Amino acid sequence: MKAKAVVHKEFRIGRIDDRVYGAFLEHLGRAIYTGIYEPGHPAADEHGFRRDVIEMVRELNVPVTRYPGGNFVSAYNWEDGIGPKERRPVTLDYAWRTKETNEVGIDEFAAWCEAAGTELMLAVNLGSRGLDEARGLLEYCNHSGGSRWSDLRIKNGRREPYDVRLWCLGNEMDGPWQVGHKTAYEYGRIANETAKAMKAFDPTLQLVACGSSHSFMPTYPQWEADVLDECYDNVDYLSLHMYFENYEDDYLNFLAKPVILDRYIQTVSGVIDYVKAKKRSKKDIYISFDEWNVWYHCRRQDNDNFKNWDWPAAPALLEEVYNFEDVLVVGCILNTFIRHADRVRIACIAQLVNAIAPITTERGGRAFRHTIYYPYLLASRHGRGESLAVALDAPRYDAKAADDVPYIDVAAVHDQAGKTIALFVVNKHPDEEAELTVDLAGFPSARLIEHILIHHPDLKAVNSADAPDVVKPQLQNGSVVEEGRVLCRLKPRSYNLIRLSV
Amino acid sequence: MKAKAVVHKEFRIGRIDDRVYGAFLEHLGRAIYTGIYEPGHPAADEHGFRRDVIEMVRELNVPVTRYPGGNFVSAYNWEDGIGPKERRPVTLDYAWRTKETNEVGIDEFAAWCEAAGTELMLAVNLGSRGLDEARGLLEYCNHSGGSRWSDLRIKNGRREPYDVRLWCLGNEMDGPWQVGHKTAYEYGRIANETAKAMKAFDPTLQLVACGSSHSFMPTYPQWEADVLDECYDNVDYLSLHMYFENYEDDYLNFLAKPVILDRYIQTVSGVIDYVKAKKRSKKDIYISFDEWNVWYHCRRQDNDNFKNWDWPAAPALLEEVYNFEDVLVVGCILNTFIRHADRVRIACIAQLVNAIAPITTERGGRAFRHTIYYPYLLASRHGRGESLAVALDAPRYDAKAADDVPYIDVAAVHDQAGKTIALFVVNKHPDEEAELTVDLAGFPSARLIEHILIHHPDLKAVNSADAPDVVKPQLQNGSVVEEGRVLCRLKPRSYNLIRLSV
Amino acid sequence: MKAKAVVHKEFRIGRIDDRVYGAFLEHLGRAIYTGIYEPGHPAADEHGFRRDVIEMVRELNVPVTRYPGGNFVSAYNWEDGIGPKERRPVTLDYAWRTKETNEVGIDEFAAWCEAAGTELMLAVNLGSRGLDEARGLLEYCNHSGGSRWSDLRIKNGRREPYDVRLWCLGNEMDGPWQVGHKTAYEYGRIANETAKAMKAFDPTLQLVACGSSHSFMPTYPQWEADVLDECYDNVDYLSLHMYFENYEDDYLNFLAKPVILDRYIQTVSGVIDYVKAKKRSKKDIYISFDEWNVWYHCRRQDNDNFKNWDWPAAPALLEEVYNFEDVLVVGCILNTFIRHADRVRIACIAQLVNAIAPITTERGGRAFRHTIYYPYLLASRHGRGESLAVALDAPRYDAKAADDVPYIDVAAVHDQAGKTIALFVVNKHPDEEAELTVDLAGFPSARLIEHILIHHPDLKAVNSADAPDVVKPQLQNGSVVEEGRVLCRLKPRSYNLIRLSV
Repeated sequence: MKAKAVVHKEFRIGRIDDRVYGAFLEHLGRAIYTGIYEPGHPAADEHGFRRDVIEMVRELNVPVTRYPGGNFVSAYNWEDGIGPKERRPVTLDYAWRTKETNEVGIDEFAAWCEAAGTELMLAVNLGSRGLDEARGLLEYCNHSGGSRWSDLRIKNGRREPYDVRLWCLGNEMDGPWQVGHKTAYEYGRIANETAKAMKAFDPTLQLVACGSSHSFMPTYPQWEADVLDECYDNVDYLSLHMYFENYEDDYLNFLAKPVILDRYIQTVSGVIDYVKAKKRSKKDIYISFDEWNVWYHCRRQDNDNFKNWDWPAAPALLEEVYNFEDVLVVGCILNTFIRHADRVRIACIAQLVNAIAPITTERGGRAFRHTIYYPYLLASRHGRGESLAVALDAPRYDAKAADDVPYIDVAAVHDQAGKTIALFVVNKHPDEEAELTVDLAGFPSARLIEHILIHHPDLKAVNSADAPDVVKPQLQNGSVVEEGRVLCRLKPRSYNLIRLSV
Repeated sequence: MKAKAVVHKEFRIGRIDDRVYGAFLEHLGRAIYTGIYEPGHPAADEHGFRRDVIEMVRELNVPVTRYPGGNFVSAYNWEDGIGPKERRPVTLDYAWRTKETNEVGIDEFAAWCEAAGTELMLAVNLGSRGLDEARGLLEYCNHSGGSRWSDLRIKNGRREPYDVRLWCLGNEMDGPWQVGHKTAYEYGRIANETAKAMKAFDPTLQLVACGSSHSFMPTYPQWEADVLDECYDNVDYLSLHMYFENYEDDYLNFLAKPVILDRYIQTVSGVIDYVKAKKRSKKDIYISFDEWNVWYHCRRQDNDNFKNWDWPAAPALLEEVYNFEDVLVVGCILNTFIRHADRVRIACIAQLVNAIAPITTERGGRAFRHTIYYPYLLASRHGRGESLAVALDAPRYDAKAADDVPYIDVAAVHDQAGKTIALFVVNKHPDEEAELTVDLAGFPSARLIEHILIHHPDLKAVNSADAPDVVKPQLQNGSVVEEGRVLCRLKPRSYNLIRLSV
Repeated sequence: MKAKAVVHKEFRIGRIDDRVYGAFLEHLGRAIYTGIYEPGHPAADEHGFRRDVIEMVRELNVPVTRYPGGNFVSAYNWEDGIGPKERRPVTLDYAWRTKETNEVGIDEFAAWCEAAGTELMLAVNLGSRGLDEARGLLEYCNHSGGSRWSDLRIKNGRREPYDVRLWCLGNEMDGPWQVGHKTAYEYGRIANETAKAMKAFDPTLQLVACGSSHSFMPTYPQWEADVLDECYDNVDYLSLHMYFENYEDDYLNFLAKPVILDRYIQTVSGVIDYVKAKKRSKKDIYISFDEWNVWYHCRRQDNDNFKNWDWPAAPALLEEVYNFEDVLVVGCILNTFIRHADRVRIACIAQLVNAIAPITTERGGRAFRHTIYYPYLLASRHGRGESLAVALDAPRYDAKAADDVPYIDVAAVHDQAGKTIALFVVNKHPDEEAELTVDLAGFPSARLIEHILIHHPDLKAVNSADAPDVVKPQLQNGSVVEEGRVLCRLKPRSYNLIRLSV
């Protein structure tokens, strides 16, 4: 199979916001407890945080981490998680029918963020609560001192305000499963009033309103239009979520699904423009794609499990074991965000540890990297800079999920400071090697730095604590640069990163 | 007057849910305080509950008791009624402008229910409060332990959860008199979201949404359609209320009013079917007729009284003194529920003690049974089993309340286990004896067990503490069974129960 | 310039409600702290209230004072302001980004009202809170004792209830700047349900629903119609607000603006009548014009200031320095209320001390009267009684604000008890003296008592602590009464009060 792409120095999509490589940590299953927090673990620091996990998160260079939910937040009372730990109540999480010990709350998580080198993105509860409690949390986190909530933070041991910049106005409020689910109008109203109150406290806060939980939601995309009608002037981002599955074990269809993501982003961008025009506004709203991942390996079984269990604390839940096939889909997803750098300013892999996550820990034991850790790592490391438009000419196929899907998925990133170009390329073809020629217009002196490959002959190959390196990146020969053209040989079913100096 | 009825073994309406003989106890007047609870009373048990009242309630075999309101619940904070009694606040009840001492709360009332052998049906406050507080109460009552609210219950002395099955989502939210009165849409929304949260805790809970407070409400029956539109999938019962009066002292018209009840149930059943069809649902919703009674004897005077008094605690309020005429109406009401056994699964006489109630107590003194105690007792004892369709051919009359009202009101209950049939028959005719022939098709070996009569020559005759037996059931001769036919001689203005072995 | 007016004993508009001379004190800037309350000040009484300010307020004879907001109330938790002062939290006021020390709360302010001889008009928070908290405040203030909230008041040192009669249901809920801003429907609903709960406590309370914040609001006057549609039956007054400015320094246009006020009142009166007719109601609703004043001298600068400051406590804010020109506008405003005595039953100058106020204090120092203190004083003193219709024939001018504006503004008040007539007359003409003839039909024996003049050759003349008497009333010769006719000579740009005995 042959394919051709053109990248031109001046055809730029936009600067990639570092925060598209963000992540998400919810009080769910073992994400927090025995995930990032496990006092008594050999690797635990003085606060009980696992240093081995922090190290992996630091390796990923996660710019921002969304917290504490997710569905969890819609019935969460943040005050339960502050103050002396021995006085914190145990509460019930209705989303997953588990016990929440409240050992980790906002103060602990903020401290973890500092240790892990990631910015805190905080969600307020607009399910069972509203404006008044959101404002208390905001003052607790961000006010310098001398007021009730800020003084309580200081009393609890933290003098400096956390100065949280990014705030989610609830979570998936379009979902009937959400505690305190709202209609688009109801949500638009409460989001608007809460946003105004929060911006009255600090007009420079960045606020994220809930868009759709998936493009398959029956209310999509009217939800976006109706919500923005109510709150356009007072919010900065619209949140979208999407998870990917391969229940039917149909490889090519699975690999076609990121096309749905592409259209989702495009459609919502159009809705934003439509409301902006209606409002005669000069203000732009961007997309915060703050939950995305592959999620299906253990999903149905988990759904059965949690309906019947007796409110366990920190049970194994959503502990997806990712395989090599998922690497290719995750690669295409990340490429899609890069290609929409002009619209998507934040994106969060959901989640970071144990629950639908690239990192898994053993209780009391080891931590290891799943297959999808690696495309996420490579994108986070090498995908920062300017997103360049890619004019692609490649063979295509039709699938149930989408028609006219190219076998090759390419994103190009120009790091002007580092004087490099990164080409992220997935060859989806099940059995044909691809010869891809990339014409680097405007980069006459391009030279190959390296070609990194993720590949495994078995699509279902996985990593584990005992065999953590089954699927991982390796250096690859087979790409050359000639007269401003990159000639790449791409294995069938392969994820590739070609790095060039320019 | 002659009348004919046919009952056939195979023409069954449906199994009568025992809970149609339920009752209601509200924090209102002397229902709780000096009604069921009076520490220091000679008959009081160690918890302060009057044993004489418990005995009467046990005699009635009340399957379920609704609590704590009624209008009271819509401004009630349930947390005020738990914990050490000396620390409970005195609060103001806006519905009746009385003081609530909070000496009885959920723990006391649940204990009383156990003593009285009745199931607790608990209402949450959706007037001044919402989802969040409802969930706290639910966890307090039903969670096993290890969480804030359940541990508080244990600390307050009750280890085992109460496991309350039946929950009312507010009370009469269609009534402008209700604190936090809602539109149908507003109520449907809050009922739906509260129901979802409660079922997230326990999907087997049975939830009751508010229907109309009376068929004379201006919003009836659009209220039912609109509310169910919002919450059909998440509730199990629709609550209806109706009270009966004879302000005009028009005997035949008063006795015609249960026909309005019949049409009310029929209409709401139709609305339920209509929404079910709209929703393409397989789920059924049944009627909980959780407030019904005669109420007018002291109603207007009470309304004047409470507007002017200075917030007394446990004043005499709604202390209806029922007469013999009311027996006949109550008999027709109960017959109506039996004839709608396929739709009405719960019904609660309102109320049980002192306030619009079959039982009255003297403060520090005696308790006695009002006239209406007896038809309720007989129905509760002998009205359980299968409701059989009754094909009735009887003379009819026109009244202001309804046209074409039969002078005879019959309900037939087949107790398959006990091998008995109970015929509940009211002869409404003011001065003609009725000769009723009931053809018992399919019961060839039927034999008379007894004919019980409630009758008094004076329609206005009442019972009192000094004369508690003025109106009460008595055995009656005058019915015979011949060749599968029951021949009954029914006095004018009489309530009759004819029991047969089959 | 010549002008003519006729006043007739029997052509009465209606009794002027004393409360149209009410005022407003908000927790804003230095209105409360260092305004009315400054412990340690030489003039402070034992509670910390400044006696010098109380004296000025007593001189004004302020019948009613609205409290505690204003925008402040929409995020105010009244419980923060009760109990031992050392335990009260410091909170943040989002409206002006200041710190609220809560040293003054409801108990202190009610004590101040008693000291200052003014009735308390109390606002509940319908922004961030609702019905439930409103009811707590109501019980705290007005219940005699024996319940949680009333006992807390007693414990806090006040045995007798305050028995507050006048309650504002929120503040400017039509304003997008308001915390918890509502749509007209949302506000009408919450106002109605809160009103019903409050009247269930005490049906004789007088409740004020929010109308428009200004006649320039885009939702005006549909807001009024929609709000009243929801709550007409349960409220007693509709609140209107209006502030006046002269940014363009256009004298005649500034003086034409009270005509907008006149039309505002007229239009809202029409809306009230319209809803009354729709409801087939016998009940009347009156206007509470509970915020009015000139406000522009430091308004823009304040708006810049508060966006950038770091939450100061009691900063200088909205400290308008009023000039002589403002006296003329304030005179016309007060005249407008007098001429609408049949509709406007309450009006509150906004505010009373330091913030947009007739009185300014120095921190630790002197208090003085601004120019507008005087027309307010004269109207409050001499403007009580019956408002008489004035048939005016005067030269007119066109301005940007309104066309056909008379150069002369007249209001006539007949004090039947005191047997006096007061004519409040503003000559707006920039340079012509006016000869005004007032025909006093039905008052044959009228005699001049005095002609009081406020005038200064410089429209921009102001008072200050050092020069407090630059602009103040003075006795004037030049009016005579002849044969039931008053002949007045009115200086150009002058405020005049002609008092007659009749």
